Amino acid sequence: MPNRLLLRAANSQRLEAFATGNRLTRPLVHRYVAGYTVEEAWKAAEELKRDGIDVSLDLLGESVDDIKETEAAMQEYRAAMEDLGKVSPGATIAIKLSQLGVFINTEQCAQNLEELLRAGEHYDVGIEVDMEHSSAGRPTLEIFRQLLAQFPKARQAFQAYMRSTLADLMSFKDIKPRIRLVKGAFDEPASVAIQDADEVTQQYKYLSRWALENLPDPAFGTHDDQCIDYVKQVANELGLGREDFEFQMLYGIRRELQQELVNQGYRVRVYLPYGDRWYPYLMRRMAERPANLLLFLRSLVGG
Amino acid sequence: MPNRLLLRAANSQRLEAFATGNRLTRPLVHRYVAGYTVEEAWKAAEELKRDGIDVSLDLLGESVDDIKETEAAMQEYRAAMEDLGKVSPGATIAIKLSQLGVFINTEQCAQNLEELLRAGEHYDVGIEVDMEHSSAGRPTLEIFRQLLAQFPKARQAFQAYMRSTLADLMSFKDIKPRIRLVKGAFDEPASVAIQDADEVTQQYKYLSRWALENLPDPAFGTHDDQCIDYVKQVANELGLGREDFEFQMLYGIRRELQQELVNQGYRVRVYLPYGDRWYPYLMRRMAERPANLLLFLRSLVGG
Repeated sequence: MPNRLLLRAANSQRLEAFATGNRLTRPLVHRYVAGYTVEEAWKAAEELKRDGIDVSLDLLGESVDDIKETEAAMQEYRAAMEDLGKVSPGATIAIKLSQLGVFINTEQCAQNLEELLRAGEHYDVGIEVDMEHSSAGRPTLEIFRQLLAQFPKARQAFQAYMRSTLADLMSFKDIKPRIRLVKGAFDEPASVAIQDADEVTQQYKYLSRWALENLPDPAFGTHDDQCIDYVKQVANELGLGREDFEFQMLYGIRRELQQELVNQGYRVRVYLPYGDRWYPYLMRRMAERPANLLLFLRSLVGG
Repeated sequence: MPNRLLLRAANSQRLEAFATGNRLTRPLVHRYVAGYTVEEAWKAAEELKRDGIDVSLDLLGESVDDIKETEAAMQEYRAAMEDLGKVSPGATIAIKLSQLGVFINTEQCAQNLEELLRAGEHYDVGIEVDMEHSSAGRPTLEIFRQLLAQFPKARQAFQAYMRSTLADLMSFKDIKPRIRLVKGAFDEPASVAIQDADEVTQQYKYLSRWALENLPDPAFGTHDDQCIDYVKQVANELGLGREDFEFQMLYGIRRELQQELVNQGYRVRVYLPYGDRWYPYLMRRMAERPANLLLFLRSLVGG
């Protein structure tokens, strides 16, 4: 399970200011982040596409405090979508509702997402709605439910560690949604999320089978061999083709496995983060794999 | 979590024949089983009622192999119900669908249950449908769903360790059912049930809160102080009275706690098993608390 201290460090503005201002962190940042600018992201997307790997573009950025600030994020999303389909046909874009104001004004947030979904149709770019901390969970699902009838191709992320996930999935009865299943990487209490790592893996497998049996074109966001093998096995058991679902992984993590899956005929999509607000994202990756932290600390102190 | 070896021993016919034929086991059997005959059960029920404790009568018996054999169980259920309300007003009777043919003929099983539900109305005895092994889970819920509109007061057990439980509960949208929440005591694979004991406790607490928030008159079948305290705390938080839900415990387990809860003003119902097919029931109790096994073995060998 993610390391809690590091998850808390991910929210420290002081640490972020220190790390962001420190040029020595660049090599490590570039290991997990496609670039500081959209141009660098395009380059990474093109390279991946040449290897048969699709991307889901992730504009790094955090929760906004004022609904007016959502306009900057909207502007960036719109601009990115305009180019994304050209740079990497088949690409999708990941949307964080915390950047669209979900914590401030749910209605305005829904309108923002609707506008991006329309832009997605216009530019032929798929939309994937991220799932963030549980405090945004309910409104995120409400907004998704509200827009799903109109935009049935939108994909919503669901976190396996949440105790409510199966019930949430089953609440979408009439329109079976396209989903991305992830384990979940936020600091959640035992009252809402499974804490034991093995149990989260088992729950992930359980929900994978459910998704393969019940939903169209599910995406499995995982780097865990056990989960990946299980998905392959169940899909095979159910007579599904290797094109009937996809694996999603994060940029810079298990690059060889990504290629191996593509070579085996599976669809792979890489979550491609870019931007200068890389610190919280990177710290969450560290929290998942504290061994990487030493590398990070070493780069910070120039060792 | 239940000890798996003992759960398997619970299904051994050879061990059952050996243990049942051995009179030395009687003292231990009587610790957990109200008696071998219904008369002994009435005596136990009356004693509990005097202490302010309700009962749920459990006719010990196992899955039938032939639909015709269900008639014997039906006969026994009917006869017990006729007297139960007189002996202990407010008593309920626990029904095992495996005894009514759920594994052989679902339709016939539903008809059997419907007849018992009618008899329950006639004799003013509440019906509690037990939840057994997951292999009976789907048909049990289908039958319950089918009969719920007609018999809204029937109570269905749900097991917290099952990964599907919240979704199952939420699938009863229109009629909010009366439930008994238990942790679950069968040998289930990780593919369907949570395995880690602490996680099962957390899941139990999560579902307890959900039940208190959403369902009428829930029953909490648990001996776990942590779960009991949590239920009390959440009920208090929600402004519920001590009469708005009940605790259920097994006969012979935590007798002092049962009385303490009654003295505090909570409703307590004791699951009261009787009959000569006590062996599998007792072995499941041993599996939950292997320390008791020594007592049992000692009584078997007369030590």
